[in-house]
Amino acid sequence: MSTTISQILIILTLAGSILCGKILVFPHDGSHWVNMNVLIQELHFRGHHVTVLRAADSWYVKEQSPYYHSITIDFSVGGDAAFFKTFVFRQLQIRREGSSFWTQLSLDMELGRKFYEMHRKICEMVIRIIEDPKLISSIREAEYDVMLTDPANGGGVVLAHYLHLPLVFNVRWTVHGEAQFAIAPSPLSYVPFPLSLLTDKMTFFERVYNMLFYHLRLFFYKRVVGPHYTALCNRYFGPDVYYFELFQAADIWLMRVDFVFEFPRPTMPNVVYMSCFQCKPPKALPDDLEDFVESSGEHGVVIVSMGTLVGQLPDYIADEMAAALAKLPQKVIWRYSGKKPSTLGNNTILRDWLPQNDLFGHPKTKVFVSHGGTNGILEAIYHGTPIVGLPVVFDQHDNLSRMKYKGVAQVVDIATINQNVFLKAMLEVLNEPSYTINMNRLSRLLRDTPVQPMDNAMFWIEFVMRHKGAAHLRTESYKMPWYVYYSVDVIAFLLLVVSGAVFLIVAVIRCLCCRACRKKRVKQD
Amino acid sequence: MSTTISQILIILTLAGSILCGKILVFPHDGSHWVNMNVLIQELHFRGHHVTVLRAADSWYVKEQSPYYHSITIDFSVGGDAAFFKTFVFRQLQIRREGSSFWTQLSLDMELGRKFYEMHRKICEMVIRIIEDPKLISSIREAEYDVMLTDPANGGGVVLAHYLHLPLVFNVRWTVHGEAQFAIAPSPLSYVPFPLSLLTDKMTFFERVYNMLFYHLRLFFYKRVVGPHYTALCNRYFGPDVYYFELFQAADIWLMRVDFVFEFPRPTMPNVVYMSCFQCKPPKALPDDLEDFVESSGEHGVVIVSMGTLVGQLPDYIADEMAAALAKLPQKVIWRYSGKKPSTLGNNTILRDWLPQNDLFGHPKTKVFVSHGGTNGILEAIYHGTPIVGLPVVFDQHDNLSRMKYKGVAQVVDIATINQNVFLKAMLEVLNEPSYTINMNRLSRLLRDTPVQPMDNAMFWIEFVMRHKGAAHLRTESYKMPWYVYYSVDVIAFLLLVVSGAVFLIVAVIRCLCCRACRKKRVKQD
Repeated sequence: MSTTISQILIILTLAGSILCGKILVFPHDGSHWVNMNVLIQELHFRGHHVTVLRAADSWYVKEQSPYYHSITIDFSVGGDAAFFKTFVFRQLQIRREGSSFWTQLSLDMELGRKFYEMHRKICEMVIRIIEDPKLISSIREAEYDVMLTDPANGGGVVLAHYLHLPLVFNVRWTVHGEAQFAIAPSPLSYVPFPLSLLTDKMTFFERVYNMLFYHLRLFFYKRVVGPHYTALCNRYFGPDVYYFELFQAADIWLMRVDFVFEFPRPTMPNVVYMSCFQCKPPKALPDDLEDFVESSGEHGVVIVSMGTLVGQLPDYIADEMAAALAKLPQKVIWRYSGKKPSTLGNNTILRDWLPQNDLFGHPKTKVFVSHGGTNGILEAIYHGTPIVGLPVVFDQHDNLSRMKYKGVAQVVDIATINQNVFLKAMLEVLNEPSYTINMNRLSRLLRDTPVQPMDNAMFWIEFVMRHKGAAHLRTESYKMPWYVYYSVDVIAFLLLVVSGAVFLIVAVIRCLCCRACRKKRVKQD
Repeated sequence: MSTTISQILIILTLAGSILCGKILVFPHDGSHWVNMNVLIQELHFRGHHVTVLRAADSWYVKEQSPYYHSITIDFSVGGDAAFFKTFVFRQLQIRREGSSFWTQLSLDMELGRKFYEMHRKICEMVIRIIEDPKLISSIREAEYDVMLTDPANGGGVVLAHYLHLPLVFNVRWTVHGEAQFAIAPSPLSYVPFPLSLLTDKMTFFERVYNMLFYHLRLFFYKRVVGPHYTALCNRYFGPDVYYFELFQAADIWLMRVDFVFEFPRPTMPNVVYMSCFQCKPPKALPDDLEDFVESSGEHGVVIVSMGTLVGQLPDYIADEMAAALAKLPQKVIWRYSGKKPSTLGNNTILRDWLPQNDLFGHPKTKVFVSHGGTNGILEAIYHGTPIVGLPVVFDQHDNLSRMKYKGVAQVVDIATINQNVFLKAMLEVLNEPSYTINMNRLSRLLRDTPVQPMDNAMFWIEFVMRHKGAAHLRTESYKMPWYVYYSVDVIAFLLLVVSGAVFLIVAVIRCLCCRACRKKRVKQD
């Protein structure tokens, strides 16, 4: 009997530790949502109640979901899918035509204006939420335990502070650039700034470039996004509350990378590497795909996917790619929603969507042709599939340059692609065993963790709910002025004291010497 | 049938992952061994083979153990227990008598010489190992998987490099001071240097003190221990291999603290916080102790333990402590091997040894009177027992100042102790609920980890064995000269370029102005 009681007690204790919390989510639209949705599903499965704030015209975030309750703000953020699709085409064209610096700059500035506009609208959305008395009091009354947000926009940060909620980030990029640069010391001598294509071992001029690039990006971020969030903070919290500080004060940063992917660098105690939290063992393929894969025989299959943003490609690129793929003895499965390339081989099938994780996990999969998105690369590492990279925009070049450096990828310029170059890269990765050997080594490292990444992510979200934050894991060094943080005032003071002391000693010695000389002279006289 | 086969496969896979490795241990003698021995026992229980290198006259490390095989080097390191015991007495006397700065300095220098001598002897022991052909070849032939060492001495570091073994540290202090200062960026504006008694929030003059103190300690460490290890490296690896680099290149640093105990600070990916890895739920007390504890009624018990180094105290201190403890309504259990204090109350029993963890875990335990050793404090936090601290030497002041800052301890100067002051502190911690409330909060934080600390420590030792190191988790920034690490050369170069450009522009403008003036003058003429 007493055993039964103790068993019940254990069950109750476990049930208590799996606290059923209320989580408010302020997501970032676009491909970022894909990751957030994976976390939300898992939170739902663990019994938590998730509420997602979304704009009426959200690009990715659906109103209806079995996993979350949504609050739709009657407001258009204008994710501008159309712009981003033409942006990709224009970017490729500029690179292909080797257009002038000014053409590229003009496109970059247009992109900057789009981001500027996006952040302005997100701030307006936050105002709309806070200043809708019915909405904000319903949010208050729901008594959420935590705000989960992607700090690629700052709406969730401001709203969390307004609602006095602890803050958890699902993050790789922040409004100010790469996440860790905002809170961990990042010596520019060995921490390459993202998008710089540098490694952690740089020559002198690479280090010069890294420093210039870092300051340029920081300037850009501050100009493009700073004003909106500063105005928002001024509006609700007065002039003494700085947006950048609110954001640095987040309790937990769930980072979407780790050091199998990234170069090692200083980190902070409240940064949790959840890395490939979406990776899982493969399920069986649908029958038609399984038949197709099996039909590849000993040659195996090649998986081609250019991500959600690049569903279509300019015809000339698709044709060159298809022509090269047609020459392979492998079968090819290509996720592609554009016009069927004229050079498509019999060995290639096109699909709108692929069960990517299950395909990577299939023993017949030999190579992944990728645009270089973080998720795809992490899944490829998890399953040990080497990569041929065709980076298009944003962090894709940087991601793939890391993979190339680690000996698991070949990278081809997609803008100037021709079938021979692409075929050569494909054959290199298919036939040279080192790519697979290296990728299998990375796979073993990525999988070898004391806690599964998803369990780790869930643990820390629940930790913040249990303890109402994680203040003991974060420094408040961000509140210091820069000259205090870098001890410039202390060094200046010590230099002053030392030079004062030296001056005094010299003066005394001089004075003594003068006196001695005078006495000598008096004696001589 | 197929289910059975798959079950067998799973079991075999698990068995494979629980690799039975061979671990070579180069420990640090004294209280450091207590921690190392706990790790060794666990490694033994997990099926690993542990070999410990020890000097013939080792103070703590026994030759015979059910948990490890030992290799005794026929050599006297001279742990000098006698010196350290008199050192404690002399230290207390100096503080009680308020002796001059010079008396303190003279004692400190004597201590410095002892450490200097100890490190010299450890280096001699390493030479003795390497230059004994039979011994070193037997070590080589054993094909160890990893070197586990406490870098409070550098013997294990040099030996690991000599034997080409991956390196795991069980560490809080290194030869060069606090462990993290050696590898993680440590801004002195908010990272207090250990032994400084500072917190992570400092005034200007505290920051000045922190900087001076840091450089002073670094100078001390380099003078006291640097020469021996440098000579050792020169002897075996030539002039291009620096001891400090070998030591910074360790694969994994198992830190014996965490951020419930320490202030938050930057860290590195290869630092694993195992913190209270020796803490565990309490077992039942021996009958006599249980009866004594139960007899305390509602008042509960007080546990007094001054650690392994301070088994005895000067009579005047023991008498004052005993007199104060005699006045408490609580029962007192005192770990003490000295002469029975003349003022000992009826409520107090003395014991040579205590089942400390089981006593802390007893619901009747109210307060822990501690010298401030890290292990005891962590156990007290784990079980939620507030502290009255009587720091004696080394890091004890610093440890207890952290606990005082967190509102879980009162600290009394043991050197000038009198029964009234001690009694007041005891009553304060016994009667003011905030101490227990705060300690229970810390306890909840300390226990709330995704992996048990001991499992985490074991995982990472086994990780290093599985992957022959953990190179992907450590930077090689330690190989950079300081001016490269801090980008001084890059900043100087950029300043040069900017000032060059300014100079050129000014020169051109001047030249143009001069020409314009000349033309004007010519015209006027």
